[in-house]
Amino acid sequence: MKRDFKHGSPYGTHRVLEPKGVLPQPAWKIDNTMTIYDNEILIDVLALNIDAASFTQIKQEAGGDEARVREIILGIVDQRGKHHNPVTGSGGMLIGTVKEVGPALSGKTGLKVGDRIATLVSLSLTPLKIDEIRAVHLDKDQVDIVGQAILFESGLYARLPDDIDEKMALAILDVAGAPAQTARLVQAGDTVVVIGGGGKSGTLCVYEAKKRVGPCGKVIGVSPFAKDCRRMQELGWADVTLQVDATDAVALMNAVSEATDGRMADVTINCVNIPNTEMGSILATRDRGRIYFFSMATSFTAAALGAEGVGKDVEMIVGNGYASDHAEFALHLLRESPTLRRLFETLYV
Amino acid sequence: MKRDFKHGSPYGTHRVLEPKGVLPQPAWKIDNTMTIYDNEILIDVLALNIDAASFTQIKQEAGGDEARVREIILGIVDQRGKHHNPVTGSGGMLIGTVKEVGPALSGKTGLKVGDRIATLVSLSLTPLKIDEIRAVHLDKDQVDIVGQAILFESGLYARLPDDIDEKMALAILDVAGAPAQTARLVQAGDTVVVIGGGGKSGTLCVYEAKKRVGPCGKVIGVSPFAKDCRRMQELGWADVTLQVDATDAVALMNAVSEATDGRMADVTINCVNIPNTEMGSILATRDRGRIYFFSMATSFTAAALGAEGVGKDVEMIVGNGYASDHAEFALHLLRESPTLRRLFETLYV
Ligand SMILES: NC(=O)c1ccc[n+]([C@@H]2O[C@H](COP(=O)([O-])OP(=O)(O)OC[C@H]3O[C@@H](n4cnc5c(N)ncnc54)[C@H](OP(=O)(O)O)[C@@H]3O)[C@@H](O)[C@H]2O)c1
Ligand SMILES: NC(=O)c1ccc[n+]([C@@H]2O[C@H](COP(=O)([O-])OP(=O)(O)OC[C@H]3O[C@@H](n4cnc5c(N)ncnc54)[C@H](OP(=O)(O)O)[C@@H]3O)[C@@H](O)[C@H]2O)c1
Repeated sequence: MKRDFKHGSPYGTHRVLEPKGVLPQPAWKIDNTMTIYDNEILIDVLALNIDAASFTQIKQEAGGDEARVREIILGIVDQRGKHHNPVTGSGGMLIGTVKEVGPALSGKTGLKVGDRIATLVSLSLTPLKIDEIRAVHLDKDQVDIVGQAILFESGLYARLPDDIDEKMALAILDVAGAPAQTARLVQAGDTVVVIGGGGKSGTLCVYEAKKRVGPCGKVIGVSPFAKDCRRMQELGWADVTLQVDATDAVALMNAVSEATDGRMADVTINCVNIPNTEMGSILATRDRGRIYFFSMATSFTAAALGAEGVGKDVEMIVGNGYASDHAEFALHLLRESPTLRRLFETLYV
Repeated sequence: MKRDFKHGSPYGTHRVLEPKGVLPQPAWKIDNTMTIYDNEILIDVLALNIDAASFTQIKQEAGGDEARVREIILGIVDQRGKHHNPVTGSGGMLIGTVKEVGPALSGKTGLKVGDRIATLVSLSLTPLKIDEIRAVHLDKDQVDIVGQAILFESGLYARLPDDIDEKMALAILDVAGAPAQTARLVQAGDTVVVIGGGGKSGTLCVYEAKKRVGPCGKVIGVSPFAKDCRRMQELGWADVTLQVDATDAVALMNAVSEATDGRMADVTINCVNIPNTEMGSILATRDRGRIYFFSMATSFTAAALGAEGVGKDVEMIVGNGYASDHAEFALHLLRESPTLRRLFETLYV
C-alpha cells in the first residue's frame, strides 16, 4: 500500500505548535509525532549528548539524584516535543541510525536506511520522542535512550566514522564548533586565555590555540579546580594555568595581568558551563581584543553592558555552534593527536 | 569641617549589595546613598534616556498609561538602586551637572563642579536616586527628573557640547556605539541590511553604512511600518526599503533575497526594540557574513542555536555599547549632516 506523505518546510516550521509562525528552535513546543513528512528523515536514537550548561542546570535542579534527572529530561521532552532546556535555552545533540528517508529527499541526500549518524543541529529544535531511558552518565553529559527523532531537510548531520568510537564521536561533535572557531580567531604570537580550559570544549580550544599561537604566543588555561589545572599542565598545551574562579571578575583580571605583564589577552575563549563569567572574560581581554563566548550560559545584556560599563572596546562574538566542515575538523583532531584521543577515550568511552 | 571620605573601587564594587563579589552591572541591588567615596563623582541629574528595549517593555507593562510608567520607573530604582530593567536587563543613560568631585580624582579627571555631562556607562550600573519625575516623554524614551547619580572612577562620560541641544545630545549619545561599529564593519561594495532602520540607532546606521558602501554597495532598511519606510526613502540613505516584520524570519529572508538577487547581506545590523528577531537576522545574511546585534532584546541562545539550526556559518557580534571615541563620532554625524540634525531636532528636542 502506498503511503501518503505531507510536504514540510525545509526548516521544519510545519512542526511548530506554539507560538505559530516561528522556527522550531525559538518555538516553545513542536510536534514530535514520529510519522515523517516527505522531506524529513526518521532516526532511531541511541544516545543524547545534553549540552553542558543544560546538563549542569538539570543536575543542580535534581540535587544530583539520578532518578530526578531522568524525570526532568522526560518532562522537558514531554512538554516541548524536543530536549530544549527552558532555563538555559540550550539543547545538545544525538547519535542514532537512519530508520526512514522521506521520498522527496531520495537523490538529494546521501543518507540511506541503516546509516549511523550524529545530528549537527541542536536538540533544541529536533523533534524527539523518548520511549525509555536506558542509562544516565552523570559525568559525561550523556544519556542512552530508546527513542526516535526527526531531521529536517535543512538539518545538518555527520556520518559516524569507522575509526572512532561512537560515544567519543558524540562527545567531540557536540562541541565541534569551538576548535574550528579557535582556528579562525587565533593568530601567531597571540596571547589566548581559555576560560574553562579543563573541560571538553576548553581542552580542544587550548589544543588548537597552542598550534596557532606558535613559539612566540602564549596559551593560558583557567579553571577554579586544582585537578583541572593539573590535567592542563600534564597535557602540556597550556603554557600557563591559572586556578581562578571566572565568576570573580577582578581576581581573573589580576591573575591574567600578572601572567601577561599587564598585556592581557588578545583572544579570550569562554568555555564554561555556568553563568556569570561575562565580566571576567571582558576584564581579562585587552582593548581591541576579541572574546569568543562559546558558553551557552552567556547573557547577552551582561556582555554588552558589562563591556560598556568598564569602557572596554572589545569585540564579543556569539558562539555559533556551526562552522563549515566543523565536524571533519573536530574528528581530525582525534586522528592528529594520540594524546587527545587517549584523553577522550578515558573520559567518554 | 573636613569631611572623611571612604575610598572605593574604580569599578564600583564597593557599592554592590546583592550578590556580594560581583560588579555593579550584573548586581541585583547596589547602594544608592548619595554620599560620595573619594574617587566618585556626584551628578545632579536632569534627564534619563531609557534604553529603547527597556522603555518599550515598560510601556507595554503599563498598557501605555503614563502614571503607571512613572510607578514602574520609580519601583525599579527603589528596588535595585539603579535603573536596571529586570525583564530586559538593559539600562540607558543620563545627562546632568557635576555637583561634587571626590578628592582622590582631583588632577586625574578633567571634570569640575558645574560641568554639564552625559554618562556613557549604562544606567544598569549607575547608582541613582529619583526625588521627582517631572515629565515622561513617551515617544522619546526620555524622562525629566530631579535626582542624583554617581559616576565611578572608571566610568565614562562626555561633556555636553555647546553647539548641540542637550536633549538631542542625550538622544544620540544613548546609541553612539551603533554608528561607530557600523563604520568598522562595513566595507565598500557591501550589501548592508539594517533591521529597525527607521528607528533612532537604525537611522544612524543606515546613514553611516551608506557612506561606507559607496556607489557599488547597497543599503537595505527594514521596518514593518509604512511610515518608517517612507521616512527612510525620504531621507535617501537607504537604497531599498523593505516593509517586513523582522520577527517573521522566512518573510524577511525572502524579501532580502529578492532585493539582492539571492546574494543576501554581507553585513546585517539589528537595531530593533523588540524580541525574536535573531532568526530573521540570520536568514537575511549570507554564509560567512556578519551580524551586529545592537538590539538589547537579543537572546544569546536564540542567536547561537538559531544559526546552528539552519547551518548558517555567520559571525554574530554582541553590540558593545562602547567603542573608542564613539561619543565624538556620533556628535560629529549631527555636525556633518544638516538633514540628520534636522531629523533629530524634530524628534528629540
Ligand atoms: N555554542 C554552541 O553551539 C555550543 C555547543 C556545545 C556546547 N556549548 C557550551 O559550551 C560550554 C562548555 O561545554 P563543554 O561540553 O566543554 O562543558 P564542560 O566539559 O563541562 O566544561 C566546562 C568547564 O568549565 C569549568 N568551570 C566550571 N566553573 C568554572 C568557573 N567558575 N571558572 C572557570 N571554569 C569553570 C568546568 O569545570 P568542572 O567540570 O570541573 O566543573 C569545566 O572544566 C557549555 O556552556 C555549553 O553550553 C556551546
Ligand atoms: N548595545 C548597546 O549598548 C545599546 C545601547 C542603546 C540601545 N541599544 C538597543 O538598540 C535597540 C534600538 O534602540 P533605538 O533607540 O534605536 O530604538 P528605536 O528608536 O525604538 O528603534 C527601534 C526600531 O525598530 C523598529 N521595529 C519594531 N518592531 C520591528 C519589527 N518587528 N521589525 C523591524 N523593525 C521593528 C521600530 O519601529 P517603531 O518605532 O515604529 O515601533 C523602531 O524603528 C534597542 O533594542 C536598544 O535596546 C543598545
